[in-house]
Amino acid sequence: MSTKMHAVMKVESAPGLTWGDAEVPMIGPEDVLVKVRAVSICGTDLHIRRWDTWASHRVHPPLIVGHEMCGEVIAVGERVTTVELGDFISAESHIVCGVCDQCRVGHGHICENTRILGVDTDGVFAEYVRIPATNAWRNPPDMPWEIAALQENFGNAVHTALSIDARGKHILVTGCGPVGLMAIAVLRAVGARTIIATDVSSYRLDLARKMGAELALSPAQDDVAAAVHDITQGRGADALLEFSGAAPAIRQGFQLLRYGGEAALLGIPDRPIELDWANDLVFRGVTVRGIVGRRLWDTWYSMRGLLQGGLVDLAPVITHRFALSDFNLAMDTMQSGQSGKVVMFPQGVPA
Amino acid sequence: MSTKMHAVMKVESAPGLTWGDAEVPMIGPEDVLVKVRAVSICGTDLHIRRWDTWASHRVHPPLIVGHEMCGEVIAVGERVTTVELGDFISAESHIVCGVCDQCRVGHGHICENTRILGVDTDGVFAEYVRIPATNAWRNPPDMPWEIAALQENFGNAVHTALSIDARGKHILVTGCGPVGLMAIAVLRAVGARTIIATDVSSYRLDLARKMGAELALSPAQDDVAAAVHDITQGRGADALLEFSGAAPAIRQGFQLLRYGGEAALLGIPDRPIELDWANDLVFRGVTVRGIVGRRLWDTWYSMRGLLQGGLVDLAPVITHRFALSDFNLAMDTMQSGQSGKVVMFPQGVPA
Amino acid sequence: MSTKMHAVMKVESAPGLTWGDAEVPMIGPEDVLVKVRAVSICGTDLHIRRWDTWASHRVHPPLIVGHEMCGEVIAVGERVTTVELGDFISAESHIVCGVCDQCRVGHGHICENTRILGVDTDGVFAEYVRIPATNAWRNPPDMPWEIAALQENFGNAVHTALSIDARGKHILVTGCGPVGLMAIAVLRAVGARTIIATDVSSYRLDLARKMGAELALSPAQDDVAAAVHDITQGRGADALLEFSGAAPAIRQGFQLLRYGGEAALLGIPDRPIELDWANDLVFRGVTVRGIVGRRLWDTWYSMRGLLQGGLVDLAPVITHRFALSDFNLAMDTMQSGQSGKVVMFPQGVPA
Amino acid sequence: MSTKMHAVMKVESAPGLTWGDAEVPMIGPEDVLVKVRAVSICGTDLHIRRWDTWASHRVHPPLIVGHEMCGEVIAVGERVTTVELGDFISAESHIVCGVCDQCRVGHGHICENTRILGVDTDGVFAEYVRIPATNAWRNPPDMPWEIAALQENFGNAVHTALSIDARGKHILVTGCGPVGLMAIAVLRAVGARTIIATDVSSYRLDLARKMGAELALSPAQDDVAAAVHDITQGRGADALLEFSGAAPAIRQGFQLLRYGGEAALLGIPDRPIELDWANDLVFRGVTVRGIVGRRLWDTWYSMRGLLQGGLVDLAPVITHRFALSDFNLAMDTMQSGQSGKVVMFPQGVPA
Repeated sequence: MSTKMHAVMKVESAPGLTWGDAEVPMIGPEDVLVKVRAVSICGTDLHIRRWDTWASHRVHPPLIVGHEMCGEVIAVGERVTTVELGDFISAESHIVCGVCDQCRVGHGHICENTRILGVDTDGVFAEYVRIPATNAWRNPPDMPWEIAALQENFGNAVHTALSIDARGKHILVTGCGPVGLMAIAVLRAVGARTIIATDVSSYRLDLARKMGAELALSPAQDDVAAAVHDITQGRGADALLEFSGAAPAIRQGFQLLRYGGEAALLGIPDRPIELDWANDLVFRGVTVRGIVGRRLWDTWYSMRGLLQGGLVDLAPVITHRFALSDFNLAMDTMQSGQSGKVVMFPQGVPA
Repeated sequence: MSTKMHAVMKVESAPGLTWGDAEVPMIGPEDVLVKVRAVSICGTDLHIRRWDTWASHRVHPPLIVGHEMCGEVIAVGERVTTVELGDFISAESHIVCGVCDQCRVGHGHICENTRILGVDTDGVFAEYVRIPATNAWRNPPDMPWEIAALQENFGNAVHTALSIDARGKHILVTGCGPVGLMAIAVLRAVGARTIIATDVSSYRLDLARKMGAELALSPAQDDVAAAVHDITQGRGADALLEFSGAAPAIRQGFQLLRYGGEAALLGIPDRPIELDWANDLVFRGVTVRGIVGRRLWDTWYSMRGLLQGGLVDLAPVITHRFALSDFNLAMDTMQSGQSGKVVMFPQGVPA
Repeated sequence: MSTKMHAVMKVESAPGLTWGDAEVPMIGPEDVLVKVRAVSICGTDLHIRRWDTWASHRVHPPLIVGHEMCGEVIAVGERVTTVELGDFISAESHIVCGVCDQCRVGHGHICENTRILGVDTDGVFAEYVRIPATNAWRNPPDMPWEIAALQENFGNAVHTALSIDARGKHILVTGCGPVGLMAIAVLRAVGARTIIATDVSSYRLDLARKMGAELALSPAQDDVAAAVHDITQGRGADALLEFSGAAPAIRQGFQLLRYGGEAALLGIPDRPIELDWANDLVFRGVTVRGIVGRRLWDTWYSMRGLLQGGLVDLAPVITHRFALSDFNLAMDTMQSGQSGKVVMFPQGVPA
Repeated sequence: MSTKMHAVMKVESAPGLTWGDAEVPMIGPEDVLVKVRAVSICGTDLHIRRWDTWASHRVHPPLIVGHEMCGEVIAVGERVTTVELGDFISAESHIVCGVCDQCRVGHGHICENTRILGVDTDGVFAEYVRIPATNAWRNPPDMPWEIAALQENFGNAVHTALSIDARGKHILVTGCGPVGLMAIAVLRAVGARTIIATDVSSYRLDLARKMGAELALSPAQDDVAAAVHDITQGRGADALLEFSGAAPAIRQGFQLLRYGGEAALLGIPDRPIELDWANDLVFRGVTVRGIVGRRLWDTWYSMRGLLQGGLVDLAPVITHRFALSDFNLAMDTMQSGQSGKVVMFPQGVPA
């Protein structure tokens, strides 16, 4: 094996990403080396390329970016017992410490020492990547690469959607980026009665319908409140799944919840949010859950159940495929809002 | 309106039921009078016809039997505000006191003062029935009669199936009588990964497959344990839904649960059950829930969500239809094990 | 019995309250008439006296005010079966409809048709009051009047404190008005490890210590954040109980929560609240519950358990006692911040 | 350090235990070596001494027995980062695999690959013991040795008692061995209204009263059912904590539960249990939880909160102290039923 590989890197503290050569990683005794088969693009990757305030404070170049991936295990550290050569795995992108209070009680998703692939340590937009063996999730050998790569992100959707009880309920989904879209598929699988999705992009609203939303509305053009009232006979939605991070969507979402409703929040607002707590939270008796990452490893088991059981089909959410070397084009596509999930392949797009 | 009506009655403390004339009930200020459109047969009705030990201790003739029904409201008591003339309703069969501790905290399903239609008070196998207005559940006018009549019993299935978390899980259903069959449909709707159903009747196992079970097995002929082990890769089922009341099914069901699994028990054993508590309950860390009736009124709201959302189709579970006057034939059919749900119509089977 | 009684009334749409004569209420068939023994003052009563924006929109004079009370049943309506002449009762102040979706599933505390004694209908600051029999809670005959009167308000504290799991945990209580003070007593009773209370009034902080808070701090003078960090070894509080409704307390409270912490919000902000949702809610994986009223009737049963079991002593929270005719002085005292709970007696302060 | 140490050993497949010499254990890179300060005796140790059916199938001599301990860390493996030389630690006795499904979702207490100190691998009744560093729980340096040694067993009590909601409730505790006694202290700390304890030993019933039980009754002499009915006004206990493993206690416990009550089962029956499932489980709407071990590590955090907060005092449960070399006398004492917890000290009973 060559000791060099191609990778998408942030080489200096400035906007942009570079297609460069990097050393194939050396693995430690508890790591595995993975030949990357497919990766997918997350909003975080766009932030890093754009080099916004968050990125410039968090990321320290040089760094290989990207954190959603699947691949084949081609080397295992000497103390690794849970993964074998040849395993087809996806990576949990959160490298947790395993010893803090949160990790010890099974809440690794909120480990305070979390390091994230492609953010705090070299990532997956490369031909090879090193990950701790404990971050590897073994897939069935016949799982399509592009689906396997999506799982990390799908896990956000599963974590959010399963944090509420959707069975027979009216659910409002605000934000139809890839996570929102995948959450719609989960809600459909677990017996939601009605899914009302909102987004400002008509492209994404079309995808929302494909994933199973009864109604896909643009707050800019449609009367979302009237639609929710109509469907729920004036009672309001049973639950809100928030993926937009947008203040107007959050405020309207809470206003449209029924008394005693529940909200699960995954979207990350980029500034403080002002809300009428008295009327929309306290008096309404609402329960709100902040959602981050994937429950380790409950969410992965749920994903396995949903995917292996044929209950969720993620294929429609993948709208574009590129060779990894075309990462700039791929990221432009992702950024346009005219896409679902964008997948890239280090060895080129499969025929 | 004539003051006489036809009804199926237990007229004396002995086996059998009689097709007789009864007075059309007078209603009190908080009652409604319902013209019965369809009724369905429950195992309880067979116990009363057979006049077994339980029945002879509980039931005091003369009594009109039956408790699963739907019909049209044709008179309302003077203090009734929640039901209107012409409403198409189904009846919750448990008449609860509303003032005991359980009722006051919203657990009416375990009200200690429960009286049951057709068991403790005149029932629904008649042309007309009086029920308290608070026991009426308003249906959409276009709901098929035979589906509407089934709801009380469907509620048992919904209560049981929703008491566990089936999402993406392997579920074992023991007992494929009508409630078990309807529970299979619910599990399917709310995202179970695999449903393994058992019964001794091949007729019912065929229905179980129709309702959505991946595997429908006879403990007498099939190796249920091997099947569960195979499907769950040796781990055991995530949950057990028990509808048979049969000791061998219960014991095997617990043995086939995974560590940390959960069991929901609706089936009523007719004698004490012996179980290896140490190994099958304590060490396994299992959670068990006794299930009775329907949660008032959560279960009815869940039913509405599942049915109105088109998530559950109960039609396949109805295998036979009779005029109410043919109740003995209908009950023989139910008792044969060669049936799903048997529905009867006071005005004759609709064309 | 005279047909006239003394009462504290809002007679016109303007600030102030009047000590006037009113008719002793006539009761309906499902009501009881209660000879009032003791009442206590709530912040709501002060809002109505002051005639602020909320009050002027909600309240329609003439109206007898007040909603926290106990008394003796001296007449019962003809259909009442659950309360008897001579019963010593406290009143649940929320008159709920009993037939809406929320009421039907046992969530009467968020009934959308709630009417409140002394706000929407004549209240309890009077010699006699009429309440629906279903709103009466029977007390032991020997319960002290002033404790019995407090129960409605104590229920807010119990509802809030029991909505989280305080067992062995570090709890932050923001706001030491009477409800906060009573919540501290509950937290102490149910095994909180540390209770850190904050308020701007040193009078109330003294009471907080008396009720069982380890630390009682003024955000104006003390470094609350440092104290929480010190006690929790930098992890943050396990839970926040918010009773102040004050934006700075809310914001700081969320910042001081540990990852995966929980917040229960009873305090009513008088304007929208701005919060750093990304960092203090979503990333932190926090669960938030809006709390309103008392769970009907779970909270009352919990109160009974806590009080009858001798687990909570409310006596220290009562700091002032007045004859009802001295209501203005009593309300001034309450408004001064130099008080705990203020109780009034229609027949004069007991010796 | 000498390479030999004293230890209590099972040297051959026969009844009895031997005070012998053993090698001081060598530690691996992820282990720590602990100088044992105090150990306590569990029923399991008595089974192994007696060499009953269970023991003779599970235990493979030669083996050092015992699993409840505390001590000082005197050597740490090269990869250990969470424990330091000189730490005063207690041991979690369940060595779990960390990689099975249960471990991965934070349910290590039901790890199917659990190995137990002193049962499956050399134990703690010795001068020194090797444990995996991940099994060490760091105590405050000033925690009394005998309390620290008790924690493993206390964890069973905490796990059981916190699995139900005891706040303001009537709780029935069957079995007042050490775990039952410690559970009583926990119930008292977390706000149980009434604790009714049963045992056949009057010695233990006295201890139960000391730990906080209102009523401590012998089923052989007292009318337990009448007492429960009296205290609960005929409703039945809100919850049952079962520590006896005795069939009559279990059956009576379930009969004395109220409708909708909950049961937590830690006691291990030595043969199948026969129960009237229909009436005592299904119709009663009871929830039952099998409890095993300690939740890793939630239960240890709860223990820390309860002990550090001064909420539970375990001192009264310790009734006898011996030098480790007097293990036979200590075990006879434990077996007599005339004891609470029996603690032993490898370096002799402290003055």
